[in-house]
Amino acid sequence: MKDFIIHDNWKVIEDQYHPEWNEISESLMSLGNGRMGGRANFEEKFSGKTLQGNYVAGVYYPDKTRVGWWKNGYPDYFAKVLNGANWIGIDITVGEEELDLAECEVLDFHRELDMKEGHLVRRFTAKLPSGKIVEVKSQRFMSIVDSETGAIRYSVKAVNFQDKVTIKPYVDFDVMNKDTNYDEKFWNEVEKEVSNGEGFITAETRKTLFHVTTGMKYQIFIDGEKQSFKADLEERVKYISNITSFDIKEGQTITIEKIGVNLSSEYAEKSDLVDQAKVFLNKAFEKGFDQMLDEHKKAWEVKWETSDIIIEGDAAAQQGIRFNIFQLNQTYTGEDPRLNIGPKGFTGEKYGGSTYWDTEAYCLPFYLATAPEEISKNLLLYRYKHLDRAIENAKKLGFKNGAALYPMVTMNGEECHNEWEITFEEIHRNGAIAFAIYEYIRYTNDFEYLAPYGFEVLLGISRFWTQRVNWSNYQNKYVMLGVTGPNEYENNVDNNYHTNRLAQWTLQYTREAVAYLKENHAAEYASLKEKWNFNEEEEVSKWTHIIDNMYFPYDETRQIFLQQDNFLNKEIIPTAEMGAENRPINQKWSWDRILRSCYIKQADTLQSLYLFEDDFDVETIKRHFDFYEPITVHESSLSPCIHNILASKIGNQEKAYEMYLRTARLDLDDYNNDTEDGLHITSMGGTWMGFVMGFGGFRARNNRLILNPFLPKEWKGYSFKVNFRGAHLKVQTTHDHTIIENISDVACDLTVFDKEYTLAANDTIKL
Amino acid sequence: MKDFIIHDNWKVIEDQYHPEWNEISESLMSLGNGRMGGRANFEEKFSGKTLQGNYVAGVYYPDKTRVGWWKNGYPDYFAKVLNGANWIGIDITVGEEELDLAECEVLDFHRELDMKEGHLVRRFTAKLPSGKIVEVKSQRFMSIVDSETGAIRYSVKAVNFQDKVTIKPYVDFDVMNKDTNYDEKFWNEVEKEVSNGEGFITAETRKTLFHVTTGMKYQIFIDGEKQSFKADLEERVKYISNITSFDIKEGQTITIEKIGVNLSSEYAEKSDLVDQAKVFLNKAFEKGFDQMLDEHKKAWEVKWETSDIIIEGDAAAQQGIRFNIFQLNQTYTGEDPRLNIGPKGFTGEKYGGSTYWDTEAYCLPFYLATAPEEISKNLLLYRYKHLDRAIENAKKLGFKNGAALYPMVTMNGEECHNEWEITFEEIHRNGAIAFAIYEYIRYTNDFEYLAPYGFEVLLGISRFWTQRVNWSNYQNKYVMLGVTGPNEYENNVDNNYHTNRLAQWTLQYTREAVAYLKENHAAEYASLKEKWNFNEEEEVSKWTHIIDNMYFPYDETRQIFLQQDNFLNKEIIPTAEMGAENRPINQKWSWDRILRSCYIKQADTLQSLYLFEDDFDVETIKRHFDFYEPITVHESSLSPCIHNILASKIGNQEKAYEMYLRTARLDLDDYNNDTEDGLHITSMGGTWMGFVMGFGGFRARNNRLILNPFLPKEWKGYSFKVNFRGAHLKVQTTHDHTIIENISDVACDLTVFDKEYTLAANDTIKL
Repeated sequence: MKDFIIHDNWKVIEDQYHPEWNEISESLMSLGNGRMGGRANFEEKFSGKTLQGNYVAGVYYPDKTRVGWWKNGYPDYFAKVLNGANWIGIDITVGEEELDLAECEVLDFHRELDMKEGHLVRRFTAKLPSGKIVEVKSQRFMSIVDSETGAIRYSVKAVNFQDKVTIKPYVDFDVMNKDTNYDEKFWNEVEKEVSNGEGFITAETRKTLFHVTTGMKYQIFIDGEKQSFKADLEERVKYISNITSFDIKEGQTITIEKIGVNLSSEYAEKSDLVDQAKVFLNKAFEKGFDQMLDEHKKAWEVKWETSDIIIEGDAAAQQGIRFNIFQLNQTYTGEDPRLNIGPKGFTGEKYGGSTYWDTEAYCLPFYLATAPEEISKNLLLYRYKHLDRAIENAKKLGFKNGAALYPMVTMNGEECHNEWEITFEEIHRNGAIAFAIYEYIRYTNDFEYLAPYGFEVLLGISRFWTQRVNWSNYQNKYVMLGVTGPNEYENNVDNNYHTNRLAQWTLQYTREAVAYLKENHAAEYASLKEKWNFNEEEEVSKWTHIIDNMYFPYDETRQIFLQQDNFLNKEIIPTAEMGAENRPINQKWSWDRILRSCYIKQADTLQSLYLFEDDFDVETIKRHFDFYEPITVHESSLSPCIHNILASKIGNQEKAYEMYLRTARLDLDDYNNDTEDGLHITSMGGTWMGFVMGFGGFRARNNRLILNPFLPKEWKGYSFKVNFRGAHLKVQTTHDHTIIENISDVACDLTVFDKEYTLAANDTIKL
Repeated sequence: MKDFIIHDNWKVIEDQYHPEWNEISESLMSLGNGRMGGRANFEEKFSGKTLQGNYVAGVYYPDKTRVGWWKNGYPDYFAKVLNGANWIGIDITVGEEELDLAECEVLDFHRELDMKEGHLVRRFTAKLPSGKIVEVKSQRFMSIVDSETGAIRYSVKAVNFQDKVTIKPYVDFDVMNKDTNYDEKFWNEVEKEVSNGEGFITAETRKTLFHVTTGMKYQIFIDGEKQSFKADLEERVKYISNITSFDIKEGQTITIEKIGVNLSSEYAEKSDLVDQAKVFLNKAFEKGFDQMLDEHKKAWEVKWETSDIIIEGDAAAQQGIRFNIFQLNQTYTGEDPRLNIGPKGFTGEKYGGSTYWDTEAYCLPFYLATAPEEISKNLLLYRYKHLDRAIENAKKLGFKNGAALYPMVTMNGEECHNEWEITFEEIHRNGAIAFAIYEYIRYTNDFEYLAPYGFEVLLGISRFWTQRVNWSNYQNKYVMLGVTGPNEYENNVDNNYHTNRLAQWTLQYTREAVAYLKENHAAEYASLKEKWNFNEEEEVSKWTHIIDNMYFPYDETRQIFLQQDNFLNKEIIPTAEMGAENRPINQKWSWDRILRSCYIKQADTLQSLYLFEDDFDVETIKRHFDFYEPITVHESSLSPCIHNILASKIGNQEKAYEMYLRTARLDLDDYNNDTEDGLHITSMGGTWMGFVMGFGGFRARNNRLILNPFLPKEWKGYSFKVNFRGAHLKVQTTHDHTIIENISDVACDLTVFDKEYTLAANDTIKL
């Protein structure tokens, strides 16, 4: 855990030069706009520790798989997030000295991410080896208005000297993924051009043949006065730059405003790519840095208007929750159903692929409650578009008849993971994808989603479960063998409660969907039946048999469902009785010891109790929570939020608060020693869920919003906002009262503290 | 399956040029003498498909581990068998044309391994592109008398031309392992010298710093007349050669006799290495090819005298069993307790490391019955010498107090494997190593092995089991969670019967060993107690508690022990009812499907019934066999032999014969499509076991030999020989009678067909 980041309500601030933690700050202060993004790298050359990273959404490379031991069914290739062109680069030379902080005496240094306005500011004073002192200021953002572009304003002041200052803005496509399996570069140059003040490179990914054009256009000012210049043009393979020198007097400041563009062939014809990129770039360039920034700030204001959470009396908590919301909004804007929420967003390249079940389980609730309905729908459509590949994937594993197994990790629908215990066995993900359809409809009432999209996905997943269970003569029930639950600290177990329950539930829900479609969309249903060769009578009756005869491991003595068949053979020793020297167990223990221990990495049976909470009374949830929580080590960032919600539900407010603290500042405080690789984007959705569903007791049920807010005693108050079917509510809680304000023109049915209300447009309830 | 190998009682013959299968023949006809060996590569240049392989025993390289996903407890490095210097090379140039079969028209080709005499012969007639025809003969062996040396006689006849023939014998240390993880070469040159008619290179392995000197010395004859010559000397990095041209007339034959030497720093001081290698080489060179070969043949005669098996009426079976015996004897001579039996011997480099539990479980019985006692003892001492590392290995996984976990695969005592389900979980290997001590003593009566060696190993293993089990409040028994049994088609199961039984048995036997040592070796025992800080009272009482309360999964209905806790949840469908298109399942099915299927890769519960057969009546064995055998797919080469033995025991002779056929010609017929990588050396011990213990009903019990021979109806007769405590017996069986001949000067107590005999020296029983 590190605490060099200054606590502030709206900013992430590093106020000293910490080259040893530079990669952490680069991750934390990453910028993105859903279409492109990058780490908070320095614009000028830096020979110290850095992970240079710029990413363009939807562009990937199928790297050849490297595993220790091959298993049948592994993908030969898997899609990797690609490190793209460095377009932010501006090399600075003072006299003959190159500006490189690693070679300077850094007199002061300040870097901050302004989350309210969505930009990155850096300023420093550095003494070069010659003794010359420069004062540098830079400001950068990725426009969420003109999402193909980003802008930089970068200035250098000659503090104590007069000399030539050379400015070299460039675009460098000659980059390599840090996680390449075979030390290969993934980009080939297609074309490039460079002229005075601008330049473009188009590169193509190997194999996938995506094209990306990255360009720059800039202007230069001295003490605010625009300069005309004639740059030396430099080009080499996958690289272009402009080089211009200016004579700068002591006290003068030279400033470059550089606009960048990234456009991929996902958004334009390859033949048009350069021309279109130029259009976008010129448009932005004409607006100029200030107007672009202004529009960008206003757009962020709108985002915050719907999604902000305010915490009073705790700057660290306030910074934490805003950081989570900000990064989620930077990563995914929901405008394009081909995109999704990568576990590292645009902040790093760890993990091949980009989409996990995290999206459905931990991010969807955030977007449902804080963003337009279309955005959540696009998250669902992403999976709909991958259905064919999910069927192909299941087929590779021996399943038939349109059974679909969605991949554990994917970029384009193909599986990107290859540990057998995950790839082949962590199949509860399939249930999460089915559940997301239900959750979306429950929240939005958009039943119209089923016929054209949702049913097909449900059918494929139901067919998978139907084949994946087997009848056990021994149990006289259907069992599901050889699975890994969300708790990846148990592998290849039999009858994981969560997986069995999700399978049973999927069949139930698909059966309901069949009934709904028959009644409401007979024609579409008929053509769906034909399209999928769906033998309703036979298949539904098989589903019913499975639904009615699913086996769940249960302990009669404790009256709890067991995480898996043999769980009680383990020695159950609460984490509290385990010495601190053993934590985290994933660093301290061998894998076999972890596997046979009772310790749970992340909510598993409790994940089910969270999903299906309406099926259980509070006493039952409490019994399960009291059994599982003391043996859960929360070594996944996705675990504490679920415990937060359940603890809140059973009235254990202290535990809820403890769980909340574990996620809210996970990256800011570098809890897991891995922030340098990038941020835990998807777990940020979980943090939001923990807050709003835990502390706020927020749910959508039966076309009503439910709220049961309570205030952790450490805080003075909080407020959050949620959307619900056109209504927009602000919920404020202090130790004295709860105020629910409808700040929209649409009335909203509410249940607060078990009492029903209809909150009229622009009305307020105070409790 | 391929059948290009000619069936012959004593030879492995390829009588046509099959360049597509060259790598298979190279494996099959490999030569070795326990200290060095190599594949049946061509001496002259060959640009076709070939896996060049020369290996020196005991020399290894710790290659940096490459796995897909790291798990705590994996080794950072693991020892690899090293491809060593190519000393067999003799390049031939006719005029200006290099002889390379891949570039010639091959008019005839013959390659054969003479198993009786232990040498490799090759002859071919080839037309070079120019039309010149050469007739080449080569003969090669690795001396089992002068085990640092090998010899080649290689001759070229000018069939239809007169020209210059250039002969270039060389030593090339610039080789690379095919299985290198990072495309690195593992050898650095130390020194080299080359002079007229001889040359030496000493190279050092990186990291491990083994030195190996490889040298050559040769002479040349034309039509039998020794030539004097003045060779051009060539040297480059890690390479030396002599180049000499001779004018050859049509019909003349030029012959080179090349002697090679390999000496490693395991057998000589580094400073002395070259000098000593020269001594060995000169000694062999003075003997000359013919005398060396003569001595070598005689030594093979002695080996066959004790270990041969004769099968009458079936050349394929005869060739198969002799091939197994021959390769085992080539791989391991038992003279050096630092060496062991690699799964590929000197025939390939697949699999890092060299020693598996195969040695104890499948090879020890062969050496016990056919070789001097010392050889088996050396196999045990190998593990004794690795005890400290086994303790270190267990410590890395969190075990304490001298608990020892022997590695799954090793070269120097360190673990070389990294699949968690094997490395950490396939721990029955530890039991196999304990059982080998018991089996050795049962066979030899050498109780003296316990005090200085055996007990320490047993103690370490017993301590491991003691910590590896845990008390289950649920079962009210000790359970063992998260293991993989010999059936690697189930992973991470709970309470694998075989593992639980071996653990219990180890504790029982160690407790017996304690009692024996107290009574018979009080002083040594006292010092052992001190050395190992062995708290007898406490530890033995803990063992007793575990022995008395070990849990074994059992099915009351079928009255069989279950392979693991949840086995009966599986769908049990006999392999006979599974379509052929599914076989082998490890090629046709995804890994998850295999794991949750009932199909068993190799004998597992049956392995226990074989080991502990005396604890069960025949009916019980039959019940288990009838349950498990129909669902066993035998996709491990180590499986059918155990089924062969048990089928024989329960009187199912046809099944026994079927199982025998699956192993005896595994490599010769390339059953598994992988002979090209090298031979399945350790499973060859299993083939021998299947024959002698299955068909022969051979056992050693209570200081007697037991025999219950039967003859498969497909054969006319067979005979095999076994040693037992100084006696040497020949057992002959036909359809009419069984003759047991004591061909030694020592009497032997026997039980044949349940009747007891004492067979006097040189006496015979005919039944």
